[in-house]
Amino acid sequence: MKKYILPDINRRTDTIILANGNFPSNPLALSILNNCKYLVCCDGATNNLADTSRVPDAIVGDCDSLSEENQIRFADIIHRIPEQETNDLTKAVRFCLKQGRKELTILGATGKREDHTIANISLLCEYMNDADVEMITNYGVFNGIDCTSLFESYKGQQVSLFCIDQSMVTSHNLLYAIEKRIFTNWWQATLNESTSDEFTIETNGRMIVYRAF
Amino acid sequence: MKKYILPDINRRTDTIILANGNFPSNPLALSILNNCKYLVCCDGATNNLADTSRVPDAIVGDCDSLSEENQIRFADIIHRIPEQETNDLTKAVRFCLKQGRKELTILGATGKREDHTIANISLLCEYMNDADVEMITNYGVFNGIDCTSLFESYKGQQVSLFCIDQSMVTSHNLLYAIEKRIFTNWWQATLNESTSDEFTIETNGRMIVYRAF
Repeated sequence: MKKYILPDINRRTDTIILANGNFPSNPLALSILNNCKYLVCCDGATNNLADTSRVPDAIVGDCDSLSEENQIRFADIIHRIPEQETNDLTKAVRFCLKQGRKELTILGATGKREDHTIANISLLCEYMNDADVEMITNYGVFNGIDCTSLFESYKGQQVSLFCIDQSMVTSHNLLYAIEKRIFTNWWQATLNESTSDEFTIETNGRMIVYRAF
Repeated sequence: MKKYILPDINRRTDTIILANGNFPSNPLALSILNNCKYLVCCDGATNNLADTSRVPDAIVGDCDSLSEENQIRFADIIHRIPEQETNDLTKAVRFCLKQGRKELTILGATGKREDHTIANISLLCEYMNDADVEMITNYGVFNGIDCTSLFESYKGQQVSLFCIDQSMVTSHNLLYAIEKRIFTNWWQATLNESTSDEFTIETNGRMIVYRAF
């Protein structure tokens, strides 16, 4: 059974994809950004790095929202992908996969337009079979799963589950125990709480698991 | 067929529910807040009014996040509902329904913890049969529907659709036409665009329709 660990402020993450939502402000997210080995920016997210010392290793997207200054400064690391079928986040994930990168941490993917936020979170279920992908926000960490999975946690941690498929779910070590339930609306499995240093979600459908910090 | 109009800066809204997410900063959302006839605050959202001249007409929730100062100041309009089965937003909606209020505009329901944001948006589909409920954020307006519906719009307006049920959807006057499609993940019907001053969504399942400003 796959175990999803909690992000750690000292972790040296392999590959970060910085999306064009709110720039991280949480100390954990910022530390992970600053310590990563390889940083891919979704297009306009590059502009958000201006106030930091961090420089991207690659810039991916249709590049319609990249400032003129950054278009010149970063000309040799810009990978322009103009197709309209996928968003910049998916373009960046595919760019990383092509390079053989299999451990991806997505930052900055939430907090502005809510439809972008919801779409980006649900895209985790598209990426999960091709790589280990987690999304870290200012408030917590999202993972996509489609089979029974173990999550590192702590007693009292707030946990929300979202079912993309209407499949049966059972939980272990959550305060409001879930026993072979099918959820028919997004809010129904939210605002739960871990009772231990790990919890398990049994499922065979696609789900998003959120652990608040 | 029900028509959903666009929010207007001059509109004098009947009832506002202010939730405890990000306080509105968009001029349209702020104007609607300032011009409403009756303002219900979800619990801690009351604290966010401190910098405005607006005073709530009622405060609803478990009231665990209301400042001590506000507990005293607003003692006579606090409606304490301690049950844990519903969140403060649902408590506020039910409070309004009990008073016979049937036109509800929700503000401040997004922008902090993403699980709260997603849950609050999906709750529109729980409220829609009891009242006319819209959610206005800094970025757009959300409505819940479960039958074919008409939306006021403008050419070029960004539109995202989210299916709570996996039902067949057809669109009219959207740039990327949808023809009897079933969507199996949240992102799939996002980032569309209106081609006219109104568009239609044909469905018999529960959906969330988002029009960006």
